[in-house]
Amino acid sequence: MSADPDCIFCKIVAGELPAEVVDSDEHTVAFLDINPATRGHALVIPRDHASDLLEMTDEGLERTMVAARRLARKMEETLKPDGFNILNACRPAAWQTVLHYHLHVVPRYESDPLQLPWAPVQEDPARLAQVAAEIRGES
Amino acid sequence: MSADPDCIFCKIVAGELPAEVVDSDEHTVAFLDINPATRGHALVIPRDHASDLLEMTDEGLERTMVAARRLARKMEETLKPDGFNILNACRPAAWQTVLHYHLHVVPRYESDPLQLPWAPVQEDPARLAQVAAEIRGES
Repeated sequence: MSADPDCIFCKIVAGELPAEVVDSDEHTVAFLDINPATRGHALVIPRDHASDLLEMTDEGLERTMVAARRLARKMEETLKPDGFNILNACRPAAWQTVLHYHLHVVPRYESDPLQLPWAPVQEDPARLAQVAAEIRGES
Repeated sequence: MSADPDCIFCKIVAGELPAEVVDSDEHTVAFLDINPATRGHALVIPRDHASDLLEMTDEGLERTMVAARRLARKMEETLKPDGFNILNACRPAAWQTVLHYHLHVVPRYESDPLQLPWAPVQEDPARLAQVAAEIRGES
């Protein structure tokens, strides 16, 4: 296991900081977010430190995602939400505040106040084609 | 491969509906969202139909997540964003509109207008403890 001595999530993994742990396995730990978006909002993290999405191993990504779904199923039985969001924030420009990879598991309720973070507006097909070519490395 | 004849994402996988495909492999396809949150916003889907997070196989979840990160790395090189969000919406109460599992890969830019969908406010520890016990099946 690799840990970063300055990382608060590594300290939670090590039991050096308190957290409301709701699930765990050999490779992951899930605990409640102390600033919850909704009732039951939790974070699933790998035990091994990796700062963000781009730094994770494939295996770490796989295990964390499967653990997030296991937690969603557990919440489905206990909290009876109406849906879920799984969210990863990679880097501060994308709202990442703790630099240890984590998946937010946010149980959703018909009556909750959360708003989609963007207004869906249909894009011009020519502009989509241009961006797609750029991503594919064609332009 | 299993497909749902009424699913528009299955039709994209089959090449029966157009899409700006930006990445694909044996098990997944990635294409641009036609209502993009930011420049390059894409969706990564499994080729096999599954309606949502709770219906996916572990293997399907793993492959889709690894494909999403591969796409993020590709965008990192080409679009040069400042971060990423990976988002899954499971069920209509959580903003799911197409009932074929998909991960949003949203490249983020310092100047983009996206807003975190909730206001982080610290929760009372006693309430957190109560929710945690409920999820763990202790109450």
